[in-house]
Amino acid sequence: MSVEQTSGQTFIRSDLVVIGGGAGLCVLAGIAHYGNWNSVVSFLVSAAAVCLLASLVGRSVEQLGDRFGPGATGVLQSALGNLPELFICIFALKSGLVDVVRAALIGSILANLLLVLGLAFLVGGLKHGTQKLGSERARTISVLMLLSVTAMAIPSIAHEVHSPAGSHEVAFSVIVSIILLALFALSLPFSLRRDPDSTEVVETEPPRWPVWLAITMLAVAGALAAFVSDWFVKALEPAMDTLNISPVFAGLVIVAIAGNAVENVVGVQLAARGQSEYAFSVILNSPIQIALVLAPALVLISQIFGLASLTLVFGPMLVVSLMLSVILAAAIAQDGESTWLEGATLIALYGIIATSFWWG
Amino acid sequence: MSVEQTSGQTFIRSDLVVIGGGAGLCVLAGIAHYGNWNSVVSFLVSAAAVCLLASLVGRSVEQLGDRFGPGATGVLQSALGNLPELFICIFALKSGLVDVVRAALIGSILANLLLVLGLAFLVGGLKHGTQKLGSERARTISVLMLLSVTAMAIPSIAHEVHSPAGSHEVAFSVIVSIILLALFALSLPFSLRRDPDSTEVVETEPPRWPVWLAITMLAVAGALAAFVSDWFVKALEPAMDTLNISPVFAGLVIVAIAGNAVENVVGVQLAARGQSEYAFSVILNSPIQIALVLAPALVLISQIFGLASLTLVFGPMLVVSLMLSVILAAAIAQDGESTWLEGATLIALYGIIATSFWWG
Amino acid sequence: MSVEQTSGQTFIRSDLVVIGGGAGLCVLAGIAHYGNWNSVVSFLVSAAAVCLLASLVGRSVEQLGDRFGPGATGVLQSALGNLPELFICIFALKSGLVDVVRAALIGSILANLLLVLGLAFLVGGLKHGTQKLGSERARTISVLMLLSVTAMAIPSIAHEVHSPAGSHEVAFSVIVSIILLALFALSLPFSLRRDPDSTEVVETEPPRWPVWLAITMLAVAGALAAFVSDWFVKALEPAMDTLNISPVFAGLVIVAIAGNAVENVVGVQLAARGQSEYAFSVILNSPIQIALVLAPALVLISQIFGLASLTLVFGPMLVVSLMLSVILAAAIAQDGESTWLEGATLIALYGIIATSFWWG
Repeated sequence: MSVEQTSGQTFIRSDLVVIGGGAGLCVLAGIAHYGNWNSVVSFLVSAAAVCLLASLVGRSVEQLGDRFGPGATGVLQSALGNLPELFICIFALKSGLVDVVRAALIGSILANLLLVLGLAFLVGGLKHGTQKLGSERARTISVLMLLSVTAMAIPSIAHEVHSPAGSHEVAFSVIVSIILLALFALSLPFSLRRDPDSTEVVETEPPRWPVWLAITMLAVAGALAAFVSDWFVKALEPAMDTLNISPVFAGLVIVAIAGNAVENVVGVQLAARGQSEYAFSVILNSPIQIALVLAPALVLISQIFGLASLTLVFGPMLVVSLMLSVILAAAIAQDGESTWLEGATLIALYGIIATSFWWG
Repeated sequence: MSVEQTSGQTFIRSDLVVIGGGAGLCVLAGIAHYGNWNSVVSFLVSAAAVCLLASLVGRSVEQLGDRFGPGATGVLQSALGNLPELFICIFALKSGLVDVVRAALIGSILANLLLVLGLAFLVGGLKHGTQKLGSERARTISVLMLLSVTAMAIPSIAHEVHSPAGSHEVAFSVIVSIILLALFALSLPFSLRRDPDSTEVVETEPPRWPVWLAITMLAVAGALAAFVSDWFVKALEPAMDTLNISPVFAGLVIVAIAGNAVENVVGVQLAARGQSEYAFSVILNSPIQIALVLAPALVLISQIFGLASLTLVFGPMLVVSLMLSVILAAAIAQDGESTWLEGATLIALYGIIATSFWWG
Repeated sequence: MSVEQTSGQTFIRSDLVVIGGGAGLCVLAGIAHYGNWNSVVSFLVSAAAVCLLASLVGRSVEQLGDRFGPGATGVLQSALGNLPELFICIFALKSGLVDVVRAALIGSILANLLLVLGLAFLVGGLKHGTQKLGSERARTISVLMLLSVTAMAIPSIAHEVHSPAGSHEVAFSVIVSIILLALFALSLPFSLRRDPDSTEVVETEPPRWPVWLAITMLAVAGALAAFVSDWFVKALEPAMDTLNISPVFAGLVIVAIAGNAVENVVGVQLAARGQSEYAFSVILNSPIQIALVLAPALVLISQIFGLASLTLVFGPMLVVSLMLSVILAAAIAQDGESTWLEGATLIALYGIIATSFWWG
């Protein structure tokens, strides 16, 4: 019984688009990479391929996780959902693009809290009017986000104010990274307990992929993501030169948006369907992932494997933008409702901050 | 049918006080200006005249706007309500008093969020006990205020942390100003839709001035405001020297309070009458006006007409005070109630911040 | 009728433990001090003695205050509850340990808002699940705390951003201290009015000590606290040297936790008993006390009595940590509920900030 035969039941149409498109773009990205195409074209193709692979990893994890209950899905999604972004950052560190990685980590959070949240409010507000965000869950997530991002920001602040800890950048960053990862480990049973309440409302379709298919998909998509991330990073530097874009802007805006494209689209789609609460939770969850998993994992990996040294010391403009964004997002969560005008203002704020990084 | 004849119906007593007092003070300010009176006296008289003219502009706009519905009133008030302050700032820029203008813009926001809000809480709390601020409208306005003031503050922050954008001060400020004005234009239909709910409660008197009278009043008061603002600014510099006041303190405290005297009194009066919700909305609306209209308009005017170059880069102490004030005001709005002790603490905070600028 | 005879009615068991243990430890601390014991041992013994004396002062005040109603208790507790910490800080200033005092004042607030609040959430959450913090009182206290700590922080901010007020450090700090103490005086009738609602729930035992006994206890414990604080400070410096701890870390962590040990334990105990609302109020009240009473009183005392000059200018890392902590605590108060994971994150954040001061 081949996959094609049962694809009517096994794959829904969007799965086929992602698998087919992903395969095609990966081939095209490979040809562009090895054929020494124009760096900008090569960059765009590999960026698109990364997006589709990220989507495929997400779908495989979701299918796989459904077998073990919604709690385990959360754990798997946390561990594997950041896989493509993790690959991109590792290859970028291997190429010495530390500024790009630093900016990409902060940029992912800013893009989520300002651009994606803004788009979700704008689309949701225009389609459905003022939206409620009153649930305890949204507020609890916003407080956790505020706390975890603040914890991640302390080494930068210590460095910026010339505190003595600032001159022990690596040691302090490693200690903080271990604390953040320990917090993440602690938070897993928490997500296990809370997930059922929120997921049963939104996920009604039964699991469709057999376990072997989900695992195969995950392995193939993961392996491909590693290759394509490498090509993406290789094309990034000459493309930045050609387009005259600074490394910080490239990381903050381009890498950050490409690496989170799928989650971002999901958040906005949920808002468009009127599920503003769920959209808000999804969007606020991403910064927690970055602060508690992705950033500390990259710090430890960079130190252990001797890549270009990444610490938790980000540039001052990155950190101030970050702290303002999390405070604003927390204020919005407490506010209890969202309007399209708040959405437009968030997008404008993202535009202003991104512009400030244009002059690299 | 002359105006005097129908003044019983046309003007209420406070109108007559404002018109008479305004006319008298304008004449006195002119005499002081052309008679080379003592600069402190001249300054005080013209400051008082500006206040009454601001009140008269406000009344004319309100009368005029009632003809076109409460929504249009909002638009007109936004565009014209800041007229006297706009004139003062333009003349100050013409005289090269950039520091005064910068401090006056931030000072207006601080005066609103700390001093006036504090007085409103103090008066309202002492008269009516703990006051509720629970409405969604108050909270939505506070989020909008937080977002718009933060957007306005980004160029200052970029400059302060030596971000590369800091060395493109003018270009960056112009871009941000255009984005802020665009946001304001977007927000107009929003105010049109929301206004009816809140205004019908508080405005029950029918319109009283004929259209021609309101337009005439507006034109006369506006023209006089231009003259008196000029005299005010001319007297400001020697008065500062005589009283040994630094330009920043003069802008932050004196110009800011004089330029907003009328709105400030209205906010406190509303609180005294127990309309704490409405007072809160009025007080929080003013910083939005300054961030989305007055400041960006002045930046563009100063660049287009070649006045002393005003950018959105304010001094670091101004910006930190600003950001702390908006965060505090937002926290108070979320809190859902106000006490006189919160009012006293806000006033104390204003006093402390103002004192910090005393040593210019 | 001797005290021993009626001790069954007069003293409950924990009173006897505190009195006996306190007396014993005071004697031991004296022997250690005059016997030139090892400085670390001497330091630990006097620290423990200070903790028990602080507890004894607290108990005496509570017993005494009950005679004059719960409102007067509040006033007395405010004035006398900080007595041991006040003594320690005064002796430390006499010994020129200004850095220790500065760090201890900020450290007390951080320990309350991060460590103790985190422990209270963790213990309460693990024992009783998600806890509600919805009361108006908790939110009002959090706003007052945000406002008063911000007011106290303005001189540091002015100094850090090189505002002109920064070079009038002493004058500005004295003015701010007077304003803060005036605010505290104003807040006393407020606490008088509010206390009844909250205290009647938790304090059901009748007063047990006769007035003369409570006054005697208070006088003896206060006098002993003065002596032991002196020994504590004398042992602190050689102990810091022996253990290779920087003055800032010693103040921020060790002195801050020793000086507030009793209140801290009370807060966590209340949370363990499920009284999360009351625990939250107690924990958030302590920073208000430090900002409105302890810090300004020490500034005035240091200037009047010519001790090492203490101003309200704290180091930048201290101030940023302080402002982030109060904003986070206010956000948590507005959130309306607490979970053990929030508690764990708060504790992690405290650990990270404390670590950043390790390298002194």
